[in-house]
Amino acid sequence: MFEARLAQGSIFAKVIEGLRELVTEATWECSGNGITLQAMDSSHVALVSLVLRSDGFETYRCDRNMSLGISLTSMSKVLKMMGKDDTLTIRVNDDSDAIVLSMESQNQEEFAEYELRLMDLDSEHLGIPDTDYSCVVKMPSTKFSRICRDMAILGDSVTICSTKDGVKFGAKGDVGQGSIRLNQSTNVDKEEDAVSIELREAVALTFAVRYLNMFCKAAPLSNQVNLSMSEDTPLMCEFKVGDMGHIRFYLAPKIEDAEN
Amino acid sequence: MFEARLAQGSIFAKVIEGLRELVTEATWECSGNGITLQAMDSSHVALVSLVLRSDGFETYRCDRNMSLGISLTSMSKVLKMMGKDDTLTIRVNDDSDAIVLSMESQNQEEFAEYELRLMDLDSEHLGIPDTDYSCVVKMPSTKFSRICRDMAILGDSVTICSTKDGVKFGAKGDVGQGSIRLNQSTNVDKEEDAVSIELREAVALTFAVRYLNMFCKAAPLSNQVNLSMSEDTPLMCEFKVGDMGHIRFYLAPKIEDAEN
Amino acid sequence: MFEARLAQGSIFAKVIEGLRELVTEATWECSGNGITLQAMDSSHVALVSLVLRSDGFETYRCDRNMSLGISLTSMSKVLKMMGKDDTLTIRVNDDSDAIVLSMESQNQEEFAEYELRLMDLDSEHLGIPDTDYSCVVKMPSTKFSRICRDMAILGDSVTICSTKDGVKFGAKGDVGQGSIRLNQSTNVDKEEDAVSIELREAVALTFAVRYLNMFCKAAPLSNQVNLSMSEDTPLMCEFKVGDMGHIRFYLAPKIEDAEN
Repeated sequence: MFEARLAQGSIFAKVIEGLRELVTEATWECSGNGITLQAMDSSHVALVSLVLRSDGFETYRCDRNMSLGISLTSMSKVLKMMGKDDTLTIRVNDDSDAIVLSMESQNQEEFAEYELRLMDLDSEHLGIPDTDYSCVVKMPSTKFSRICRDMAILGDSVTICSTKDGVKFGAKGDVGQGSIRLNQSTNVDKEEDAVSIELREAVALTFAVRYLNMFCKAAPLSNQVNLSMSEDTPLMCEFKVGDMGHIRFYLAPKIEDAEN
Repeated sequence: MFEARLAQGSIFAKVIEGLRELVTEATWECSGNGITLQAMDSSHVALVSLVLRSDGFETYRCDRNMSLGISLTSMSKVLKMMGKDDTLTIRVNDDSDAIVLSMESQNQEEFAEYELRLMDLDSEHLGIPDTDYSCVVKMPSTKFSRICRDMAILGDSVTICSTKDGVKFGAKGDVGQGSIRLNQSTNVDKEEDAVSIELREAVALTFAVRYLNMFCKAAPLSNQVNLSMSEDTPLMCEFKVGDMGHIRFYLAPKIEDAEN
Repeated sequence: MFEARLAQGSIFAKVIEGLRELVTEATWECSGNGITLQAMDSSHVALVSLVLRSDGFETYRCDRNMSLGISLTSMSKVLKMMGKDDTLTIRVNDDSDAIVLSMESQNQEEFAEYELRLMDLDSEHLGIPDTDYSCVVKMPSTKFSRICRDMAILGDSVTICSTKDGVKFGAKGDVGQGSIRLNQSTNVDKEEDAVSIELREAVALTFAVRYLNMFCKAAPLSNQVNLSMSEDTPLMCEFKVGDMGHIRFYLAPKIEDAEN
């Protein structure tokens, strides 16, 4: 039997919203340590890796390791029915071919229970090498979302250049060309508004902005996003999931255009 | 001559919004007692009955009984032009083939007047038998709206099961299956948030959720909805219109699926 | 070299939003006095004239007169990327075929720069005769917008009748017919809410409501709109741009229907 309970069910709904544009169905690996998920998008360009540690749940029980094939599209529909302060319990009974989501309102007067059939999915474990990145940019996730959305209006690609003083996003296309430059914050009132850069080596990398925009669906999870970059290495775009884990997206840079 | 005046014209606009998805045109019966309307939807599945008593209007005058064929679609368009605090006067002159809607802003500096041509409609008076229902569920109308909307995502039908402790709404379909259970409120701060159940006999009835969703267009009229049910009898779904009347929708249960 | 700087860049964005539905590309005339623009819509029915005086800018430099062919569609896309409190600088270097828009956030930590290619446009200077209008109606621009939107639901044309006591907007069509009458304000708390009428002669003029609705895209620029009218003369619909200029739209009345 698998059963995990989150007092703030809305966090789980945000996780699913953050994933479901990139991957519509995926295999959840459940163990005593927690839930993990790895998947590539349908065109095998981007990769996502989710970790939710068991100690982040209010209660967590996993009697034996389980691989659960789940339609994120269906799960998203069901989670949209959850009240914003509802408690969420996820349960899979032994020998069951369904996952059960139970929601309970804060005043304990409304209970909802949804059952989704599990799917048989080809599961491939993807080795992600540990990388010592040349540069890590931390910035407000809403700002990153807005910039990616704006750059997509200008062109298909966005070039991210980072030096120790700041980070610059640039794009060009039919409308014209443009760039947005953020200075490293010197002092900010709220840490969540800060732009900070850890840099061993300056980088200039070009990415398909369409994928960055899909990654930004996970921005509501976290005030800050971490962009880890090295030349000729996939970008790692990370959103923390509270204190319990993270979503990491990986995207290889484009070869041409890198000189922008 | 017919003339009726409402200090809060927005109530009348909400009545029309509550009706117009189910019936696009209908005959209003005006008499000294007030305005009534009865109509079936175009597929003759659901029935609606409206009562607005004359004493609920600020002024009301009806010299002789009148049957007014009205396009609710056109009337809705015109009522959308009304300011939210406007006074509304409805007038039909003798020997006129038009209904006139006059709106006056609260500061008495803006006056609008709209004239809609009356229509010749086949009018059929539908006898609705008085029923002594097995069960009456009273609940917040926003909650009923949300549940019907959610159930429609799961499937075409919703099964409503009511016992003395609570009421359960269930549906199933391609996405999966699910149910929402509401407990009878024990004590609530605000009466409008309460769920209360008067029950002589438990019921389990299945309805086409599409129609329930149309009924919910009338939810802005009232904080609470009354669902009156008996086995093998049409559901009566009632929204009060202030102190002046009500909209009642009737929908026969589905025969199959009732065991859900 | 041309360079003009606005502390409140959002004003410029509103100017472009006010123009771009009527004209998608236009020639800006820049001189020491400021920026002017005149253009007709693609069907040559309506005319717009923009004036932004140099003294309204925070800094303004124009070494020689320049005619700049600009896609308002592209410029609008770029200006939507501007933060609402950003400073905007517009620059055209000598011998450059591009206009550069620079935006700076209030905290001076975010800088954006966009470059739009200039276009070769046929430029025609349109003589607009000075007119001594029979009637000038000043009214809240939000109210004018709402009325034009409402009248468009009723029909294609709107008839504006103005007397010394008030102004009446009327339309008719398939739905029915209707009119909205505004009294001249006697006393209002806020000047921006007032309806005031300067009248030498009563007027009754009919206009294509579609164009009035396009003019209303400029309504966010100003709390009040001025409607200047004379029989057989184009309407002038004016929105002030702060203290620095105005947008004036001109539209000839329809010949038939004027008797409404």
